[in-house]
Amino acid sequence: MRDPAPLGCVAIVGSGQIGTMLGLALRASAATAGVREILLYDVRPGIAEESLARGAGDRLAGSLEEALGAESIILAVPVPQIVDLIDHLVAGPARPGKFVIDTGSAKDVVTEAMRRLPAGVHAVGGHPIAGTERPGPAGAEPRRLGGATFVLTPARDDPEALRRGRSLAEAVGARPLVMDAIEHDRALAVTSHAPHMVAFALALAASADGAQPAARPDLVGSGFRGTTRLAASDPAMAAGFLTANAAATREALARFRRTLDRLESSLDAPEALGHLLAEARVAREALVDAGPAPADRAPQEPMP
Amino acid sequence: MRDPAPLGCVAIVGSGQIGTMLGLALRASAATAGVREILLYDVRPGIAEESLARGAGDRLAGSLEEALGAESIILAVPVPQIVDLIDHLVAGPARPGKFVIDTGSAKDVVTEAMRRLPAGVHAVGGHPIAGTERPGPAGAEPRRLGGATFVLTPARDDPEALRRGRSLAEAVGARPLVMDAIEHDRALAVTSHAPHMVAFALALAASADGAQPAARPDLVGSGFRGTTRLAASDPAMAAGFLTANAAATREALARFRRTLDRLESSLDAPEALGHLLAEARVAREALVDAGPAPADRAPQEPMP
Repeated sequence: MRDPAPLGCVAIVGSGQIGTMLGLALRASAATAGVREILLYDVRPGIAEESLARGAGDRLAGSLEEALGAESIILAVPVPQIVDLIDHLVAGPARPGKFVIDTGSAKDVVTEAMRRLPAGVHAVGGHPIAGTERPGPAGAEPRRLGGATFVLTPARDDPEALRRGRSLAEAVGARPLVMDAIEHDRALAVTSHAPHMVAFALALAASADGAQPAARPDLVGSGFRGTTRLAASDPAMAAGFLTANAAATREALARFRRTLDRLESSLDAPEALGHLLAEARVAREALVDAGPAPADRAPQEPMP
Repeated sequence: MRDPAPLGCVAIVGSGQIGTMLGLALRASAATAGVREILLYDVRPGIAEESLARGAGDRLAGSLEEALGAESIILAVPVPQIVDLIDHLVAGPARPGKFVIDTGSAKDVVTEAMRRLPAGVHAVGGHPIAGTERPGPAGAEPRRLGGATFVLTPARDDPEALRRGRSLAEAVGARPLVMDAIEHDRALAVTSHAPHMVAFALALAASADGAQPAARPDLVGSGFRGTTRLAASDPAMAAGFLTANAAATREALARFRRTLDRLESSLDAPEALGHLLAEARVAREALVDAGPAPADRAPQEPMP
């Protein structure tokens, strides 16, 4: 590990699952990451307090302005609010030398906003791929960061921003992966955003609709539960990154639809369908078993 | 609980996850269910032995004919083979007084075949909604049967068949639910078969295809893993019930597609999309939280 960049006083803006998870992990390695103090801020009453009680920070920031005055700012809020907060920094309190990173699942709109910051501000897009659908401080599981990919999407040519981003990612136990924001968004559309749309659509399609009654809860097994699990996500947060990455999500959904059509056209041919399903299973294994995060893999696919 | 019908010598044909799960649960309550002996049979070498080693039966059947000679026969094989085995019974060894039940996820083709059995054979379709995507004896978790729905679909007017079906369902700790086979198939198309198609399609759509490279494993999080978990199912088994329930599955997929279109048409309107996603989340909660199987619900949605 190269010499880590000290993060100094860190403010986590947004104390939901991701903000709390990062705070917990960062506090555990505060000394090595050069973290002097962790401030927590959340616009929702009680949430920052709950995160503090879990141990995600040293104290609450008295105001948004106090949080944004910190040396390192982690924006862990829904994507539209990340952009709003960056624009707020552009308009006012962004002193040179400051480090700014976010945790949103859509990166192009974020890095675009970051390019409007004064040149001396070290800003980089961030996406720790370690979240779950469980909202709030209670949903935070810092062990999930262990070995997880922490994507860093450069906003501009700024080695110091990348250095501090790497420092943060490594301090929380994750593996930094530098990639282009647009490339990230295309990839995540396939591995996350289209699956979110599909999960929400499956859940909604099982509810009552005109002549068709809702599905029966006593006929719901673990399959439906798992396939729709992402539909338990916070709707505003999901709507935020889905609309921020609409074009790539549409592209991924178009491909998904074509594939579903292929499967459906074999519904009358057991052998042909079996071959396609076997191909799909192999494809999934290659993606899931080769994944990076041990904490995310073991115990293998527990059945509740 | 009414007076349970004694099941006598029980043969479980098919020692995969479901057969093994039922054997383990049934053996634990053999006395109350009037079970004298449990025989195991599987056409695949080694599988019945593995199931026996896990404790799912008392001994192996020496042959398929010996298994089919038992007083109670549980057909725990893929749907097409269930139909084949029933037809085999029709052609030969189905003595009056015998009890026959299956465990397939598609019921209309099974009960249709059962109606061809001699009148004295007590046959009923069965579907314990307690399986997972993990194949083989190692995947069997008998605790999942606790409180789970065990659907019974009558093949003809035969109270004794239903009585023994109830006996079996209650003996393994499940809740018998009598319903029409076609009604069952329509419902399961929504809660299980369409989700299977969607999971396999998502997995396949993430693999390499012409100009598009495969998704990157290090960008796969728990969301993709959960949404595609059903694509880890045995392809031949899944192809079996999907093709057996093709019409209802197509209907459920058509509704799913319309719902996905609705969501997609809001991808440029964060607020409208947020409302739809919130509606979907509520729909899912109503289905999942109201579900019957405590073993299937707690611990709530563990994140590996």
